[in-house]
Amino acid sequence: MADMLLIQGANMQWLGRRQPELYGTMTPGELDEMVRAHAGGLGVTLDIVYTAHEGSAIESVYGAYEAGVRGLVMNPAGFTYNGDALRDAILGCEGLHYIEVHMSNLAKRDMKSRLVTAADGMIMGLGAHGYLLALDAMAALLGRR
Amino acid sequence: MADMLLIQGANMQWLGRRQPELYGTMTPGELDEMVRAHAGGLGVTLDIVYTAHEGSAIESVYGAYEAGVRGLVMNPAGFTYNGDALRDAILGCEGLHYIEVHMSNLAKRDMKSRLVTAADGMIMGLGAHGYLLALDAMAALLGRR
Amino acid sequence: MADMLLIQGANMQWLGRRQPELYGTMTPGELDEMVRAHAGGLGVTLDIVYTAHEGSAIESVYGAYEAGVRGLVMNPAGFTYNGDALRDAILGCEGLHYIEVHMSNLAKRDMKSRLVTAADGMIMGLGAHGYLLALDAMAALLGRR
Amino acid sequence: MADMLLIQGANMQWLGRRQPELYGTMTPGELDEMVRAHAGGLGVTLDIVYTAHEGSAIESVYGAYEAGVRGLVMNPAGFTYNGDALRDAILGCEGLHYIEVHMSNLAKRDMKSRLVTAADGMIMGLGAHGYLLALDAMAALLGRR
Amino acid sequence: MADMLLIQGANMQWLGRRQPELYGTMTPGELDEMVRAHAGGLGVTLDIVYTAHEGSAIESVYGAYEAGVRGLVMNPAGFTYNGDALRDAILGCEGLHYIEVHMSNLAKRDMKSRLVTAADGMIMGLGAHGYLLALDAMAALLGRR
Amino acid sequence: MADMLLIQGANMQWLGRRQPELYGTMTPGELDEMVRAHAGGLGVTLDIVYTAHEGSAIESVYGAYEAGVRGLVMNPAGFTYNGDALRDAILGCEGLHYIEVHMSNLAKRDMKSRLVTAADGMIMGLGAHGYLLALDAMAALLGRR
Amino acid sequence: MADMLLIQGANMQWLGRRQPELYGTMTPGELDEMVRAHAGGLGVTLDIVYTAHEGSAIESVYGAYEAGVRGLVMNPAGFTYNGDALRDAILGCEGLHYIEVHMSNLAKRDMKSRLVTAADGMIMGLGAHGYLLALDAMAALLGRR
Amino acid sequence: MADMLLIQGANMQWLGRRQPELYGTMTPGELDEMVRAHAGGLGVTLDIVYTAHEGSAIESVYGAYEAGVRGLVMNPAGFTYNGDALRDAILGCEGLHYIEVHMSNLAKRDMKSRLVTAADGMIMGLGAHGYLLALDAMAALLGRR
Amino acid sequence: MADMLLIQGANMQWLGRRQPELYGTMTPGELDEMVRAHAGGLGVTLDIVYTAHEGSAIESVYGAYEAGVRGLVMNPAGFTYNGDALRDAILGCEGLHYIEVHMSNLAKRDMKSRLVTAADGMIMGLGAHGYLLALDAMAALLGRR
Amino acid sequence: MADMLLIQGANMQWLGRRQPELYGTMTPGELDEMVRAHAGGLGVTLDIVYTAHEGSAIESVYGAYEAGVRGLVMNPAGFTYNGDALRDAILGCEGLHYIEVHMSNLAKRDMKSRLVTAADGMIMGLGAHGYLLALDAMAALLGRR
Amino acid sequence: MADMLLIQGANMQWLGRRQPELYGTMTPGELDEMVRAHAGGLGVTLDIVYTAHEGSAIESVYGAYEAGVRGLVMNPAGFTYNGDALRDAILGCEGLHYIEVHMSNLAKRDMKSRLVTAADGMIMGLGAHGYLLALDAMAALLGRR
Amino acid sequence: MADMLLIQGANMQWLGRRQPELYGTMTPGELDEMVRAHAGGLGVTLDIVYTAHEGSAIESVYGAYEAGVRGLVMNPAGFTYNGDALRDAILGCEGLHYIEVHMSNLAKRDMKSRLVTAADGMIMGLGAHGYLLALDAMAALLGRR
Repeated sequence: MADMLLIQGANMQWLGRRQPELYGTMTPGELDEMVRAHAGGLGVTLDIVYTAHEGSAIESVYGAYEAGVRGLVMNPAGFTYNGDALRDAILGCEGLHYIEVHMSNLAKRDMKSRLVTAADGMIMGLGAHGYLLALDAMAALLGRR
Repeated sequence: MADMLLIQGANMQWLGRRQPELYGTMTPGELDEMVRAHAGGLGVTLDIVYTAHEGSAIESVYGAYEAGVRGLVMNPAGFTYNGDALRDAILGCEGLHYIEVHMSNLAKRDMKSRLVTAADGMIMGLGAHGYLLALDAMAALLGRR
Repeated sequence: MADMLLIQGANMQWLGRRQPELYGTMTPGELDEMVRAHAGGLGVTLDIVYTAHEGSAIESVYGAYEAGVRGLVMNPAGFTYNGDALRDAILGCEGLHYIEVHMSNLAKRDMKSRLVTAADGMIMGLGAHGYLLALDAMAALLGRR
Repeated sequence: MADMLLIQGANMQWLGRRQPELYGTMTPGELDEMVRAHAGGLGVTLDIVYTAHEGSAIESVYGAYEAGVRGLVMNPAGFTYNGDALRDAILGCEGLHYIEVHMSNLAKRDMKSRLVTAADGMIMGLGAHGYLLALDAMAALLGRR
Repeated sequence: MADMLLIQGANMQWLGRRQPELYGTMTPGELDEMVRAHAGGLGVTLDIVYTAHEGSAIESVYGAYEAGVRGLVMNPAGFTYNGDALRDAILGCEGLHYIEVHMSNLAKRDMKSRLVTAADGMIMGLGAHGYLLALDAMAALLGRR
Repeated sequence: MADMLLIQGANMQWLGRRQPELYGTMTPGELDEMVRAHAGGLGVTLDIVYTAHEGSAIESVYGAYEAGVRGLVMNPAGFTYNGDALRDAILGCEGLHYIEVHMSNLAKRDMKSRLVTAADGMIMGLGAHGYLLALDAMAALLGRR
Repeated sequence: MADMLLIQGANMQWLGRRQPELYGTMTPGELDEMVRAHAGGLGVTLDIVYTAHEGSAIESVYGAYEAGVRGLVMNPAGFTYNGDALRDAILGCEGLHYIEVHMSNLAKRDMKSRLVTAADGMIMGLGAHGYLLALDAMAALLGRR
Repeated sequence: MADMLLIQGANMQWLGRRQPELYGTMTPGELDEMVRAHAGGLGVTLDIVYTAHEGSAIESVYGAYEAGVRGLVMNPAGFTYNGDALRDAILGCEGLHYIEVHMSNLAKRDMKSRLVTAADGMIMGLGAHGYLLALDAMAALLGRR
Repeated sequence: MADMLLIQGANMQWLGRRQPELYGTMTPGELDEMVRAHAGGLGVTLDIVYTAHEGSAIESVYGAYEAGVRGLVMNPAGFTYNGDALRDAILGCEGLHYIEVHMSNLAKRDMKSRLVTAADGMIMGLGAHGYLLALDAMAALLGRR
Repeated sequence: MADMLLIQGANMQWLGRRQPELYGTMTPGELDEMVRAHAGGLGVTLDIVYTAHEGSAIESVYGAYEAGVRGLVMNPAGFTYNGDALRDAILGCEGLHYIEVHMSNLAKRDMKSRLVTAADGMIMGLGAHGYLLALDAMAALLGRR
Repeated sequence: MADMLLIQGANMQWLGRRQPELYGTMTPGELDEMVRAHAGGLGVTLDIVYTAHEGSAIESVYGAYEAGVRGLVMNPAGFTYNGDALRDAILGCEGLHYIEVHMSNLAKRDMKSRLVTAADGMIMGLGAHGYLLALDAMAALLGRR
Repeated sequence: MADMLLIQGANMQWLGRRQPELYGTMTPGELDEMVRAHAGGLGVTLDIVYTAHEGSAIESVYGAYEAGVRGLVMNPAGFTYNGDALRDAILGCEGLHYIEVHMSNLAKRDMKSRLVTAADGMIMGLGAHGYLLALDAMAALLGRR
């Protein structure tokens, strides 16, 4: 059982290729490596899931929660617009901490997340660095730091 | 071929664990058993599908309709918010009766179903009992009672 | 003292004559008979009130509540649009169960009830059968079944 | 049985006293006399009802319709704002002609009638003269002219 | 100099051919004849203008006003939607009476006139008869009756 | 003839029983007694009317005005939502002073009164004390203090 | 009598000069030539009208329809915003097919056509090529292909 | 070729007669004289066009631009409400400067110009003086001052 | 590697059975054959994908793009309502041309596509013929014609 | 330490000079005297602050609260529109009673206070008398009367 | 006592440094000099105030008015968004003329001034030149020119 | 010159006392100490400003920027609602990095920041820890880490 679950929502698999002026050129592989290294430094383990299917993201949340995970970090990406069912799934897991990450500043694009009401907190606009800050914050929430 | 199809939408797999103050503590297994027993009493057979994927729900509707099912009972749950494609699928099956069930009273949560315009009727706010009433109503619509 | 009160709101007195393609041809007399018979089968007694005056409906709710009635079934009909005062009356009767019935599917007519936030549950779109289901549900809520 | 029913909605009883700059100084009695004289000239009979209760207006519509009246002229006055139940009553009387009259020009007061969708036609802004024009039009609709 | 000006807005030239279920089969020529005959009975003269150009309608209003016309009857038809400039022209002619006519009931089509705030009154939904009622009302406003 | 009229709108008859956490436990009888005593101290007489019928409230306003009353204090209660006709009645009584009272703070419940535009002033959120303050203010307006 | 009418709405006379990055550099003369050549290839004749006056466009539609034209292709251009009267003219010509063309993608500019509800279909965003596709489609609708 | 074009939109021909409390009593002729004199003082020539037809205004803009005019001053007047096509025409003339003038303060009348997004600047509420200020500003923009 | 990808969104698998009055009776198989034949005539190859899962459509877009496809034709069908994630995927593929097809006229059904802002162009309302026109247009965009 | 704090918001310093038809001609000095005299009669002390700076009002609230004041009476005046920060300050002082006063009836001016959700109650439309009623009410809330 | 007051609202102190592409590179000092020189040419004196505090701007308005100033020119700048209290202050100074200046065209930035309803007129989009035009206009309003 | 400026907006001075269930019990002094210690660990210096005046916050931003500060961390707190002028000030400082911090999750309170469109990024919902994360992120943006 990992300590945390990181979900990368729809279109994150295309990271580094989609609108690099907005999201940078780091690939999913490079990001994963950076994130895992930072998790290692914090002494926590991490599962990473990429999916373009909201239903699969829901199943991942329930599966991880049943396995004992209590920390969810997610960049909902393409689920940001209409991910109400996924939000309800998170709300349904009592005691699960959730931190939402967006690499760009949603407000500059006049977007609003449908999931953030289920979050402890949100970090946005800080690029890939935002994932590391989210891990720091989650470690603190889980008492791991 | 079953007489009716019961679809349990996204997050219903988590029944009994998610917000029990809203939805009670009955598990999916217990609910299925209760529903099947009631169907038996009405002399009708019933297929039950749980899915967190709207696409799968669409495929289930078409598949059941092709197999001759003319009665659909569904708690769209997580699909309630954005289930327009699923609604169109139901509207596309001429002669298919549809009764929508919600365990809680949507109006108290300021929610509105995107699917209910495709329904014959809706029963909401009556907990697990709502499923039994829906079966009664569907049996009547199908002339089974 | 009856066990339940059934209120038929404005225009219900015209049942069977008004838009029969929407509401069927059953008259108030026939409906009353059917409903009373069903109540009898459930072992409960029932008072039935028809009124086109929201003020009278409010007085009926308070009167019945004072007489000990704890189950209200109502088709608000013409009060659906602006029945806020009636809703507040229901909310003012602590412990009064309320089930709202609509013979047609409000969503298909792009209507929204002003009273349903005060209801335990709502049954709509199932024609006269909806009253019987409401009695079943109310009997269960009152522990009569 | 009269040929037509004229309903004067809430506040019309106060005609001639309320905002005379908007409605003139003619009293209900004078208006009735003028209207009846005009009806006489058209060879039609007319019942006139003043009421501040929407429920009573509904009952008058149904009562007149059952008595064979097929022409309704109404100044909904105070019912203009929220008279949805009354509108439904009119819509429920198949074959009943309805002409709506307003003495002032609603558009100048940024008002919108909730009943006019049930009307054959509407005449507004022409003061007491509007009633006479409405009788002319109703006589034509009823084939009396 | 005529006593009144009748303007038939955009698409009225097509009367009798456009949506006869809504507007009837009377042609512009037949309507003109009927209207002129009625005006004759009232002892008033009438100019009739058909135009699909809002600018031309504005010029007609100013021209007639300068020639001494103080009664304008208009079915704005196609100008109903966006005829703000025409409305301002009417408002600019001090002492000009304006009665607006619509053959159909705008409210049933969920339409709203941009010009009616400039009118003394409006008559709608009464077909070609509405023009005759408008002449009656205008004659009264001008003291010709 | 009394000096002032106090109207208690729909649901006020249930005072002390409905949502006591919001409205307190004082009954209508106790409130009346307190209000009358205070009126006595101010040297004014007072008629008190409770009604759940907006039409009856309208009739009371006109009746009192005709009898010479020039001071109206009202808690519209259930009429707060849709009491446009009642507002027009008040506006129709030239020289009638109107002070609106609400026991709770409407803004905290996101409510807005449809009648307050007809009022001299409004007092809300101060419980039963608000009636006494309203009597003080009305006495001042009427020059009785 | 031509087989089809092509209307180029307000500002199309400026084609090739106005915002070439959006509409290209082809002039009206070049476009006409290209369109006529394509029509020739389809074996249909075509009248082309450029106008900045909505009233003139309405007259062209009625004139062509009376002359027997049953196929209208139009780029409403400047009429896209407020061309309701023109839309009604098209709807008034029973049996007239209408295909709307826009050279740019309206959605990218957050625009919405007021006329497209009267169209059989619309082609947008494909530049001058869109006219050719519209002719193909119109020929098919008219059974010429 | 003149240096600047001044367009006076719909209803400006009625200046001095329409709502003098809003627009003053200066007539078009007097205004023209004043404006031309001021232009003379600035050493610029000016063409003046009055039109109630938006289509004609569009043609004037294109015609002047083709003749080399690069300065447009316009009081859109009646075109203010729906002059989108005219706005697009102005935007289509690369390098054309446009200053919008309104004699009254639009904001006080809760109006919003559909054309001002195409303007370099706007001057409003300063009566006939506003035209002179606009000429000053345009002369500066054209480097004539 | 095919030259183009055709995606048929949710519910297109039911073509010919769902609302034939809107979509015709052609089946998916017949449509595919017609489309492939037309592609053959244009000298282009085509992959066709039907899916009810938005996530799968996203994966198909990325997969085809990686394989070198630069032309996407799609009828988003059920994805039209909420397909924001799919739109972002298309926008993420630099240089990918996208033409959207709808068999019916969305505007007549008061619908708006969430994806069309990512399209080069859209063709709607022309039934199955729209696909052929889309292939023509895509071939031109890809320089194949 | 005073018992109560009275804050007069932006523009109150101009009392008696600004729109006397709305606010009367009493000056700040006269009002202060009247208010202090009334406070004296109630046996309470009062600090009075006038400020046009919302930030200063916030500081006054915190300062008074720290000094032990538990009763705040305020006419937010110019802060009524956008005083969210001041509202949060009041909400942040646990146990602080707040009564809001407006001399005019906000509803007649179609205004809504951004602060009133933080108030125990509000008194409006009763001119300078409203301050005295507010002191009465505050004295009662503080148990001083 | 100066003849006019010029207020430069929040952020104007940063002129020449903030978004020079929008506001140019002229500094506050240079602008002041230019404005004073122009005032000198008009024979009027001028006080200039820069402030980022809306409360201070309110105090400046009242102070100048008391000192006899009757002409206010203001670029509200940062107060444009929420300056309702400042607007009320201006409205409170009877006989004070107010001309609003914006260097950029607000409409191009989709902004709307909260203060302009209090202005005699507004000049926008003409850069620093707009101040000079405003002085000209104010001099004319004050009869100084 | 410090490396970064931390602004604490209106009501932050009350930290630890205002709604501790939302913001915790840490006082401004304790927070400052924690933040400074963290800055020290990062090797950066930090100025901290608390203010309830938006105008003062604007002046602080400009002052710090002129002194060379290029990193701004701010919790706008009470300025979150209407801080448009402050946002424009930040946007006016080219090259200034801005990270916005909120201790609570704004989305749970249905709030939206007016300033965040000017930010590089935002961190919310993570309590006092959010400040430390913001310093980390700012250090990275400034190349100090």
